[in-house]
This record gives sequence, C-alpha cells and structure tokens, in this order.
Amino acid sequence: MLGVTDDDDVRAANASFYAAFESGDLDAMAEVWERSDRARVTHPGWPTLHGWARVAGSWQAIFSATPFIQFVLTDEEVLVEGDVAMVTLDENILQSAGSAGGGAEELAGARVATTNVFVRGDGRWRMVNHHGSPVHRDVDPPPVER
Amino acid sequence: MLGVTDDDDVRAANASFYAAFESGDLDAMAEVWERSDRARVTHPGWPTLHGWARVAGSWQAIFSATPFIQFVLTDEEVLVEGDVAMVTLDENILQSAGSAGGGAEELAGARVATTNVFVRGDGRWRMVNHHGSPVHRDVDPPPVER
Repeated sequence: MLGVTDDDDVRAANASFYAAFESGDLDAMAEVWERSDRARVTHPGWPTLHGWARVAGSWQAIFSATPFIQFVLTDEEVLVEGDVAMVTLDENILQSAGSAGGGAEELAGARVATTNVFVRGDGRWRMVNHHGSPVHRDVDPPPVER
Repeated sequence: MLGVTDDDDVRAANASFYAAFESGDLDAMAEVWERSDRARVTHPGWPTLHGWARVAGSWQAIFSATPFIQFVLTDEEVLVEGDVAMVTLDENILQSAGSAGGGAEELAGARVATTNVFVRGDGRWRMVNHHGSPVHRDVDPPPVER
C-alpha cells in the first residue's frame, strides 16, 4: 500500500461522490466520474449498467425520485494499489420515502454495503464503479474460521 | 488498458474463483484469494466482511449450506489498470433450494450482479474483493441520458 497522501486523496474523491449524491447535482456527479465506456454502476437491486451514458441516466432517474437523502458512512476502508483505489463502506441512509405530492414527509432508513472503485488519471481520482447492495438485517454474521 | 495477456490472466483467475465455488472446495477457494487483512467479501444480502479469516468463514458457511450450485456467467467485463483488475459480471445461478434431509431435490434460480477485484503480486492475480448483490427482476431499466 502507498502513503497517506494517496489515501487522503481517495477519501476526498469518495466524499465528493456522496456530496454530489446528497445535493442531487448531476453536474457535480459527472465531475466525480470517469465519463467513459469503462464506467459502470450497480444500484441496490438493479442490474449493472455499463458506460457513462447509462450511468448518468441512472443518476438522473434517482435524483428525480429522491427529494431528500442523507448518508452516514461507516466502516470506510481504502485500498490503494498504483493508480487504482477501492473503497468499501456501509451507507447508512436516511431518505424521504413519500411519493410525489403534498402529503406529509416520511423518512425511511436503509443500509447499503458498497464498493467504490476509482482510477487515477492526470493526477485526479475518478470513479469507474459504484456497487451498492442492500443489507438484510436478519442475516446472521457467519462463523469465523481461524 | 493493457494488453490481451493481462486480460486473459484475469479471466482465468476469475474462472478459478467460480470453479472453486461450484466444487465447494475451501482449499481451492483459498488459493484464489489474497489471504490478508485486505480481503473483503459482500455476499448477496450480507454485510461486508473484512479480512481473510472472516472471508474464509463465510465460504465455509456457504459451502456447508449449498449442496449444489452452478453458475452461468454473462456480461463479463474486465478492466485492468496496472496491478489491479476489476471484473463485473452477472452470475446466473442454479442451486439446490431444499433444506437438508432426504426430501426431493428442488432447484432455484437467481441473478446476482457482481464486482470481483484482483491484485497482482509475484505474477499472480489474487482476489481481494467479491461483491455480489441480488438483482430484482421487477426493476425497470432506467432511462438513458445521451
């Protein structure tokens, strides 16, 4: 593993991703990503989408359907190897659950296990993969083999 | 991206992972992985497990509970950048669904969207992350922004 600086840069890139997500800002989200055919995303319950056009389309759809979302990130672990970085973390999510309309706001919580992958080019880390999967709380932790 | 040889080596490492999974062979599975603190796994619906001891424990639990499993892999896409490789694919799974005992065998199908990450060391690709998430078939493909 490399030095602290790389690690900090990766954490900053990862934080930018969640800032863009929380603000529902498609331009800011586009800045986070490598806008290429290599980009891919798997949202919780969704099939994997390949290429920046489909990735961007998914963000647009999600932002339209999500008036409010807030993340508390836990268990963030960074692995840097050359020009690739992988961040795994838990997204602890609070979001508005009500349908569109004038009804009272309802909030729902969820936990999503996430792998984010970044590639460095021209000194900047850019996201090439975001993979989030729903955590079912009723799954027992498996036995640990030692 | 690098040459064809790297790509082929990564595909071979990825195939070894699924061969070990199908055969339920913990030793073969251990050979596939980087057995270090960096290893991590997110099985469908599970929280992320960190470190080889927990990863190995999860395989032991899964192999014990899975008398039969077969994978048909589709949409396999490989990204190689230096000594890191990422493979995304769909696991189309056929597995025995019956509980233990002498009852008639029942088979169930499922689709899992998967990200596998490998790191090369001493000329060998070793898995550092396997992340699989359930695909809910009733999710509409999102609109594509062009």
